This record gives sequence, C-alpha cells and structure tokens, in this order.
Amino acid sequence: MEKIAVGILGATGYTGGELVRLLARHPAARIAWVTSERYAGRPLSDAFPHLRSAGDLPCQKLEPARAAVECQVVFCAMPHLTSMAVIPQLLAQGCRVVDLSADFRLRDARVFQEWYGVEHKAPELLREAVYGLPERHRAVIDKARLVANPGCYPTSVLLALGPLLEADAIEPGGIVIDSKSGVSGAGRSAQQGNLLAELNEGFRAYKVIGHRHIAEMEQELAGYAGRPIQIRFTPHLLPQSRGILSSCYVRPRGERSAASIRELLAWRYEQEPFVRILPEGELPATSDVRGANFCHIGVALDKRTGWLLLFSTIDNLVKGAAGQAIQNFNLMTGRPETEGLDQMPLFP
Amino acid sequence: MEKIAVGILGATGYTGGELVRLLARHPAARIAWVTSERYAGRPLSDAFPHLRSAGDLPCQKLEPARAAVECQVVFCAMPHLTSMAVIPQLLAQGCRVVDLSADFRLRDARVFQEWYGVEHKAPELLREAVYGLPERHRAVIDKARLVANPGCYPTSVLLALGPLLEADAIEPGGIVIDSKSGVSGAGRSAQQGNLLAELNEGFRAYKVIGHRHIAEMEQELAGYAGRPIQIRFTPHLLPQSRGILSSCYVRPRGERSAASIRELLAWRYEQEPFVRILPEGELPATSDVRGANFCHIGVALDKRTGWLLLFSTIDNLVKGAAGQAIQNFNLMTGRPETEGLDQMPLFP
Amino acid sequence: MEKIAVGILGATGYTGGELVRLLARHPAARIAWVTSERYAGRPLSDAFPHLRSAGDLPCQKLEPARAAVECQVVFCAMPHLTSMAVIPQLLAQGCRVVDLSADFRLRDARVFQEWYGVEHKAPELLREAVYGLPERHRAVIDKARLVANPGCYPTSVLLALGPLLEADAIEPGGIVIDSKSGVSGAGRSAQQGNLLAELNEGFRAYKVIGHRHIAEMEQELAGYAGRPIQIRFTPHLLPQSRGILSSCYVRPRGERSAASIRELLAWRYEQEPFVRILPEGELPATSDVRGANFCHIGVALDKRTGWLLLFSTIDNLVKGAAGQAIQNFNLMTGRPETEGLDQMPLFP
Amino acid sequence: MEKIAVGILGATGYTGGELVRLLARHPAARIAWVTSERYAGRPLSDAFPHLRSAGDLPCQKLEPARAAVECQVVFCAMPHLTSMAVIPQLLAQGCRVVDLSADFRLRDARVFQEWYGVEHKAPELLREAVYGLPERHRAVIDKARLVANPGCYPTSVLLALGPLLEADAIEPGGIVIDSKSGVSGAGRSAQQGNLLAELNEGFRAYKVIGHRHIAEMEQELAGYAGRPIQIRFTPHLLPQSRGILSSCYVRPRGERSAASIRELLAWRYEQEPFVRILPEGELPATSDVRGANFCHIGVALDKRTGWLLLFSTIDNLVKGAAGQAIQNFNLMTGRPETEGLDQMPLFP
Repeated sequence: MEKIAVGILGATGYTGGELVRLLARHPAARIAWVTSERYAGRPLSDAFPHLRSAGDLPCQKLEPARAAVECQVVFCAMPHLTSMAVIPQLLAQGCRVVDLSADFRLRDARVFQEWYGVEHKAPELLREAVYGLPERHRAVIDKARLVANPGCYPTSVLLALGPLLEADAIEPGGIVIDSKSGVSGAGRSAQQGNLLAELNEGFRAYKVIGHRHIAEMEQELAGYAGRPIQIRFTPHLLPQSRGILSSCYVRPRGERSAASIRELLAWRYEQEPFVRILPEGELPATSDVRGANFCHIGVALDKRTGWLLLFSTIDNLVKGAAGQAIQNFNLMTGRPETEGLDQMPLFP
Repeated sequence: MEKIAVGILGATGYTGGELVRLLARHPAARIAWVTSERYAGRPLSDAFPHLRSAGDLPCQKLEPARAAVECQVVFCAMPHLTSMAVIPQLLAQGCRVVDLSADFRLRDARVFQEWYGVEHKAPELLREAVYGLPERHRAVIDKARLVANPGCYPTSVLLALGPLLEADAIEPGGIVIDSKSGVSGAGRSAQQGNLLAELNEGFRAYKVIGHRHIAEMEQELAGYAGRPIQIRFTPHLLPQSRGILSSCYVRPRGERSAASIRELLAWRYEQEPFVRILPEGELPATSDVRGANFCHIGVALDKRTGWLLLFSTIDNLVKGAAGQAIQNFNLMTGRPETEGLDQMPLFP
Repeated sequence: MEKIAVGILGATGYTGGELVRLLARHPAARIAWVTSERYAGRPLSDAFPHLRSAGDLPCQKLEPARAAVECQVVFCAMPHLTSMAVIPQLLAQGCRVVDLSADFRLRDARVFQEWYGVEHKAPELLREAVYGLPERHRAVIDKARLVANPGCYPTSVLLALGPLLEADAIEPGGIVIDSKSGVSGAGRSAQQGNLLAELNEGFRAYKVIGHRHIAEMEQELAGYAGRPIQIRFTPHLLPQSRGILSSCYVRPRGERSAASIRELLAWRYEQEPFVRILPEGELPATSDVRGANFCHIGVALDKRTGWLLLFSTIDNLVKGAAGQAIQNFNLMTGRPETEGLDQMPLFP
Repeated sequence: MEKIAVGILGATGYTGGELVRLLARHPAARIAWVTSERYAGRPLSDAFPHLRSAGDLPCQKLEPARAAVECQVVFCAMPHLTSMAVIPQLLAQGCRVVDLSADFRLRDARVFQEWYGVEHKAPELLREAVYGLPERHRAVIDKARLVANPGCYPTSVLLALGPLLEADAIEPGGIVIDSKSGVSGAGRSAQQGNLLAELNEGFRAYKVIGHRHIAEMEQELAGYAGRPIQIRFTPHLLPQSRGILSSCYVRPRGERSAASIRELLAWRYEQEPFVRILPEGELPATSDVRGANFCHIGVALDKRTGWLLLFSTIDNLVKGAAGQAIQNFNLMTGRPETEGLDQMPLFP
C-alpha cells in the first residue's frame, strides 16, 4: 500500500507538534510537508526535541501553491483567521483539508462575524465544510473536501450533552458548563500570563463572557435538540499542561434516574471506540485520557436539587485537536477510524 | 502587655502548622501549648522544618485536663468528630475555644447527624457555638466561649452570595456553585490519591453528591436570605497546594447590571479589611491571595443568558482556616481584628 | 503467529501499570496474568482508570505455583526483597523472568548483603542472572532465563559514562553524579513526603549517603573500565511525576575536545535505536523523552576547569523500568528489539 | 520616627514586586517612588493583583533626575546593563542605592567585560560598590553609597562554602556546584521556554558553560580563601516558581568529620539571624524557606569517596534578591538588620 502524503501547516505549535507525534506512527500516512514561518529552513526537532524520532523533517515556509505537489491531505494547524485565507487555495489545487482552526466551524457567516469580529473571507465554503465530530457527523465526513475540526471545549461538551438533548432527556434551557483546561490550549506563543511562575498555584477563570467556542457549541447542540439552545459557558485555566474537564449542569426531563441517563449514553456510544461512559460512582480525571484520543464521561444525579451532572474529560491536544483530526482523516481516506490512534493514556 | 497564652491542638497538620506560622508572629499571642499525637515528645520543626524560626516548640500528647494550666484560648485543629469529644472538657476548665473542625458549625443536632452520619456528642453546645464568619457574625463572636470556624469552601461562597441574598438581589433557587481547591484542603495524611504523581496533570471532581460543607452553606445562606436555601455544590481537586476558587452561578432579581451588583457588594464590604470586590473586567486568581487572609471577589453578568457570575477566591489555609481563626481570636480577646494578619500574599 | 503469554506481578504499582500500558499494544505479547495483592478480585482499571482500554484484566492474588499454567514470560514488578522469594519458584516451573526489582542486579551475594542489609535468599541465581542493559549485555540476554532489569538511575548513568570508561577516555576516579528524579520513582505507596502539597515548590536531595543504586552502578562501571570504580552519587526529588536527569562530572583523559567525546559516544551508539547523542549546544530535558524508551545524552566540556559534563535523561518508568524490560523481553524471545517500543515522547 | 522614603525602579518584575511586598510592611520604610516603563501611568496592582493591599502605588516612567526629590534610598531592580547607566545619576543626586542587578558586583572592570561582553559604563564605581552579602561584608555595608546585592546562586553558594575556605577546611581546587532554581529567577518576561507547558515535567540544565554568576562567586570565594578559586558551576531549571538548592561537592582537608564541619559552620553563623545549619541527618528543601529570608544548609560526608557535601537552599526572590536587599537597607540606615524580614516561610 502506498502511504497517503500529508501536510501539516503550522507544525511548530502544540497542535502541529501533536499531529506530527501521531502521524509519524500512522501506518497509512507519510508526513510529506511541514511548514512553520518561524522555523523555516530548520529541522522540526529544533522546535520539538521530543520529535527527533519522527525523522529529519525540514520546516518550510508556507507556499500554498505547492500544496498539491507536496501532499494529498493537508492538516491546517494555523491560527484562527489565518486559515481561511489559505484554505481556499489548498482546495483549489485539489487537496483535501482538515482545518484545526475555528475558521470553518460555523455554518453561518453572520454568526461568524458576530463572534469573531471580522468578515469571513470564504463564506461560500462555510456551507460546504463539515463539522468534524465523527461521533455526530461521521456519515458526511467521508466525502468531505473540507473538515472543520471541532474546538477542544466543544468536543468535551457535545459528546456529553448532545445525545441527551437529542433524546429529549434534559431541559433545553438553563444549561451551565464550567470547564477547566490545561494551558497548552492557549498555544505555544510566549505570553506572560502563561509562564509557569504565573500559573503554578494560580488557578483562575478567563474570558467568562463571550468565549468564542460558545458559538459552535450552540450551533451543534441546536442540531442535536432540533431547536435553538443557549448555554452558560465558563472556561478556567489549570496549572497543568494538558487536559480538559467540563462540569455540565443540566435539568433532566421527567422522572429520570442517573442509571437511566448512563444507560442512554452508554447505548448511544456502544459502538464508539473513543467514548466511554463511566460506571456508577466513578468520575473522570484528566490524567485518565492524557495523550490518548478518549473521552471519558461520568454521570451523577443530585436528587436533592434536581440537577443532573455530567463530567467529561478529554486531552485537549488529542481528542480536542490532533487526534480527532486524524480520526477525520481516517474517515476521509477510507481507513479504519481508529488507525494510528491506539495510544494508551500516559499515567502518571 | 502580657501576651495571651494560646494552645494549638493538632499542630502537625496543615491547618495546625498554619496557625503556628501566623500566631508565632502575632503581637498579642504566645504559643504556650502545641499537641500532636504523632510527634509527641519531639520538636515541632521535625514535622515542619519551615517553622524552625517559631522557636523550639515541643509537641505534647493531648491531655485535655491540662488545658487551663497551659493557656487561655485553644485553637482546635483536630479532625472532625474528634473535636467534639475534647472541646467540652476545654470549656469546662474555662478555656475559650476556636474550633477549626466542622463539629460545631451546624446549629441543629439532627442536621449534623444527617450529614455526618453520627450522633453529636455535645448537642447542648451547638446552640451556644457561634459560626465564626466575622463579616457576618462579628457582633456575637466577641463574647463567645466557643467559635466554630467556618469551612474553607463555605467561606469563599458565603462572602460572595450572602449579601446578595440578604439584599434580595438574586433568586434564592437554582444556585450552582462549582468550586476548585488546592490539595492541602485534603489534609496531610498520606493518601494515594493525593500523591504528586497522581494529581499532577490530573484534575478531577470529587464527592460531587453530598459534600458535607453543603450543610453549613445552606444554614448560613438561609440566615442571610431569611428563608431556606438549597444549593448545587461541586468540589474539584486542583494540582496545586493552596487556594480555593468558587465559581457561583445565580440569577439576578429584576433588572440589575453587573455594576449595581458590584456596588452592592463593595458597599457591603467597604469597612471590611479582608474582602475586596474587584473592579470591572478583573477576575481573581488563587495566587492573588496566597498566604494571606484576603477574599477577592469578581463579578460578571452574562446578559445573553441572564446568569450572574461570582468568582470568589481565598487561601484555604488562611481565610479558609487559620487566618480566619485568628481573626476570631482577635475579636474574642478585644484585639484589633487585623492584628497578626497583615501578611501580603506571596506571588509568584 | 501465536502471541507469547506474559504475566505481570505487582501490576498496580507505577511500574506494573507501565508494563500493562506498553504490553497491551505489543504485537507479540498477550497479557495473560496480572497479580496484585491489594486489588485481587477486581479489574485492573479500578487501580488504573487510564488502562481501561487494555481490556478487562482481572487482578489475581499471586500464586507462584500457577505461573507456568498462566504464562511463558513473567515480568516481576514487586518490591525489592519480595522478588527473590518468588522468582526461584517461577524459574523452577520453566518460566523465564524479567525482574524489575533490585534483587538480582548484583552478582556478588556479599555485596548485596552489604548494601541491602539482608542475606540474599537465592544467591545461586545471582551468577546466572543477566544485567539487562541491552546496549551493554545484549549478547547474553537472548538466552537468559533470568534478566535483572537495571535501576532507573543506573540506566541513565551507565549509558553516558560506560563507553567513556571503556574507551579509557575519562579518569576512573573522582566521578560525581548529581541525579534528579520525578516522584513516580518512589512508587505508588502513600507516603506523606510524596504528597503534592509537600513536594510542589519543595525540591530536595534525599538518601545522599549510600543510595543502593550505587552498588549496581559501580559493578557495571567496573565492567566497562576493567578496574574498580567508585562514584559519588546524589539523588534529588523533582516536583514532577516522571523523568530522570543525571548530571555527570568527570575528568577527560588527555587532550580531548567536547566534539571528540560526542563522536565517541555517537559512534558507540550509532546502531542503537534508543540512545541519542545530542548535537553541540543542545542539552536534554526530561520532557524530551517522556513516555518513550529513549535516552538523550548531551555533552559539554568546561575548558576553564577541565571538567567534562554529561547530561543524560530517560523516562524512569520506560527506559528506566518497563520499556527496558520489554526491550529485554524482545531479545529473550527473538523479537525485533524495538517491537512495542515505538511510542513517540509526549510533549507538552 | 519619620519613615525613610524609598524608590523601587523596575517594580513590575518579580524582584521589584517582591521588594514592594516586603517594604510595604517595613516599619521604617515608605514606598515613595515606583517605576515601570511598561505600566507607567497605571496602578501597580494592574501588574500585581496580589499587591493590592500595598496601597494604590502609581507606576511612573523612570526619570533619574527626580530621584532625590522622590526618595532617599533607591532599590534598583532593573535588568543587567541598564542599571549601570542610571545609577551614577542617582548617586550624583545624593541617593543611596541598593542595586539588585549584576552591574556592580565585580570589582574589576576587565573581569566584568570578560563575562558580560560589554565595556562597563561606570568603572570608577566598581571599586566603591560594596558586595552586599551582610554575613560577609556587614562592616562596610553600613556606610556604603552603593551596595551591589549578590546574585541568587552566589548567595546560596557563598554562605555554604565561604567559611570553609576561610577556615582552610576544604581543598580550594576541584569544587563542583550543581544548582537548581525555580523559574522566577529567569524573570517575568514572556519567553517560550518558561511557559508552564514547556517546563512542567521538563527539568533541564541550561547555560552549563560560562554562567555569569561564576564570576562573582569566584571573586568572593577568593576573598574568603585568600587565593584564587575556580569552580565548576551548573545551573538547572526546576518546574517550580521559587527556590534555589545548590548541591556543593568539595574535598575536606585533613581528617574532618561531618560533625566538625557542621560545628564550624554553626559556630560561624551562631549570631546570624538568617543562616541555619541543619542538624545531622537533615537536608533542606526549597519549601522550608519559601517566602522568607533564611538560608538553610545541610552537611553530609561521604566517607567512602571522601567527598564532603553541602546542600544550601534559599528563596531566590528573598534571600537571593529582595530580602537581602532589605537586609542591606537596614544596615545602611542603621535599622535592626532583621527589620521587616521576620516573615515565616510559607508551607505548603
């Protein structure tokens, strides 16, 4: 079998590095093209010493015109707003694209402008792009030219709440989501606020009003529910590198037990290789999925107050970014969905 | 001025050590008696090398009968359920007591039994004990024989929500509190789950149904509100040593702005030395109060969904335990309330 | 191909868990037997939620008499001094054994007694056991019944210094080794000193006189040098979970440049899949090899003072324990040496 | 008593913030002038929320010409090479200066140029400046116009080794110093290498050849020894915010026991309020002195190899910077040396 040539744009950020880590061991992929403006002309291991064993990948300046020469599928791990300028060129050359930025996740250009504050540069592609949550949109990912890989927070939330809204098992209103993320989610750029000395022993909330991931969560949750959904979403920054834990507060509809909610989710995800509903009494920790493509979901019902709780954890760089992108790649290229994604979590 | 002789029971736990750290520099207190079952007969610095400069305090076995000989005021930093067996003896000898355990925080013995699963051993003292949140009960603390020092989570929550319920500014129902605590809150006993290797990179929720601090929060919030209050409370464990951040979700009553809520709180705490309402746009981090007796509260209003957010942070070992205990001690002994509590937070 | 049935004794410690993580994905191994006294009768995922995807492995009580029924090769990850009581029984039944404890690393029973303070229970096996550092003893590992897997500190040190002593490139006297280890090296048992609250921000040295790993380092270094070697070795405890970095101070013999030392090492390890000599100007970080079986070695020469510096890093649980054990297993069973060990390091 | 007006130049770096933390509670000092280029015109609490309780200090642009108007003593916490351009102006106006940069620590302008790579701008002041290690140079600090506050690594090393060289108790050659520092020592500027995601689980050495602190260590050690001293010095970066631990390897002269070395040091520091020699069997941890001005030194003798070990720990921002600067300030202004420096360490 000839391997599929893939490109990774923006390979020296954390998401890009994670794509290399996973794709370098993917049996059907060959990393043919890695770009980095900052490290152009140097080996990737200058940026990431841990990737030394991925071979001597040379970083190149991004020349979109070379895309089709270099590869068949492009993983675009560039910053938001940069992607949408480049991706039309990649598609025009015949490449298929998994975009890990937020640029093609929203279907409505006006909604995009509302949340991102700028006009979308390729609005015609917004309808074509497929939201790449395989557990939800698997059927349309396989043929897609452009897959918009979901955000990290949305992945953790949608997998937990989507099926409950779909089954009309919870109230659509009054949803509260309190999420906590490791700092790798903020990217690798040098910012004072992300220094170890600032964050160690310094847990805090941030962007508590209007975090942009709300838009894609509400779009997708509405899809599950068949009606508009509004959520209250609060992100926090953990003094750790990886991992997201979303604590979701919802109201069950009717007389539901925790066991019945757990069963509903377990049934929904029975065939899913990467989503696991924890047994009664167990709650997930971010370290349970570190480095792997799993999502672990714990369920509890507070009979006293009537709140149903869902705790959903993923590795923000794997199921929340690079791992899910490869899951999409596998679907797009007709490979087994779990190929290259069989890493066990790393603990401790 | 002759200094007041104080005793610290259970001095080799984290709370006990913090009491020594603060009382060793308190201008009106003299540490006269420190007990520790495990370190009896050895200097305290064997347990806490950082307390070497507190002088050569010898640890003793607890002999309650010696209390009055040794000291006037006793800080009881022993485990829950142990305190209530000892404190009646201390009081009987004429000592005044600040109890840092949960044993005397609830006024109703039945409620105690319901949440703690055992019968209270000194129910007659439950009515006498004063809940030692000075910002709320200052007027009755000064004469108290027995002050029940509030729990760490409750302190962070009550300071934020109490005045809003008191002023009828928020709905009494549907309150959600998502709290995160450093691991020192779990005490110093060796438990596998609190090892660095288990927690580093391993954020998680715990005891999500029925955490015992709910009882005292609901008791006190009901006092503010003048009616029963039920809360949804979820604790999480942070990979850091100190600090609590409580993210509170409530519904404002009527047409309130974030500014008006902030003003209400600022006015309420104007004369309070330890509580600060942050200006618009600022959110607290646990590191802003590390090692000090402050509580920082940030306010945000999500107009889209109607939720009002309060973020309240304290150092769980200071304002959440030893610092607040000394604040109570100052009130009980007629000292200035801030005496011995002027430490600036330690950052980074 | 029929897979080789393997057993893991002591599967619920960190080393045992790491063996499961790696062997569960090993193409030629089948985990047939896992034992744990503490978790006997329960699934392994009760002890390690991150190993849920390894299948429903049931923990059993250790019954050495069942070894041959259960498996062909046994990985013994039990505490020091326990292993030597069990292993003779395993061998007697025809199992081959990779022992990850220290019990069979020293060839001389008197040296063992001197450093471990007890008489060896199976001295006749000490001569038979092979010290399982493949880069050094590959030729005799393949036929061995009993491989003594090297200690974590020794692995990091021997790979860096061994070839230099062998080539007579450094002075055999006056060697100083200052090592730092993540806390997973201390095991999973609940000890106060390893709590997160104790170690976070609390770096320190420990067991600075007479750490037991000295014995095996001196034994093996003497083998390289062809003469007795004494080292000064100091272990320190890092506030992190994994990783060892050994900073080694030696005196070069004659007029050697850093480049020539680097070349010597690079030449020595040219064919080695897991050892890498870093180019000039680069120094290793523990995060460069986290989760993988690599050893990265950096070299610097201080011309001013004449000291030659070697910085050697491994993941203490992989190349320092479970990974190296599997490398030995591969050699013993005629598999490719790197099989099951192609994980890329996890960063960040 | 009228308080002494002090200025803090560069108040929004970690060292500057620590000066504010300590001076805001100093009974004889009044913070009259704080400068910060980046935060000029804004309150200091914008840069440091934890300093809110220091009062509303407004940051100003540095105008050296205003120094004498604003204050009597200036703490200069600006970057290396910047200080030497400003300090002559401050002195010319009659201010006395404690400089926390490295600019005036070396007495010889040629040595400065050799290690710092630039010509010194005020070589005439190098002879006048006093090296501000009070335990060594107390006698000449009190009258000094310009005190060069020692570096953090040198403070930890000089306090441990100085008296041993002075007493001819150790060999002057072959000294090896392996130091580890928390990341606050690298300053607050945003650098990729100091991000939490880069350092967590990522211990490493850095600048292993030619670290600039070597120059001042060798200068001062030569003073103790009465002869030139060369040291081998290796700094490492810890995944924690604060704290330095220096592990020093030296050769005792003659037949010395660990006890005699411990006694020598204990005798030397008997009257010193901030230096403590630990009893036999105890080793220091960085958390034992966190936030306080202490230096803890542990001693061990390896009889097997003849190496004498000294483990010295300080808080790099306190005894290694701001605390020591205030100790110097106290001496310069005739205040008790410990004034404002009685903080107990913060643990956990």
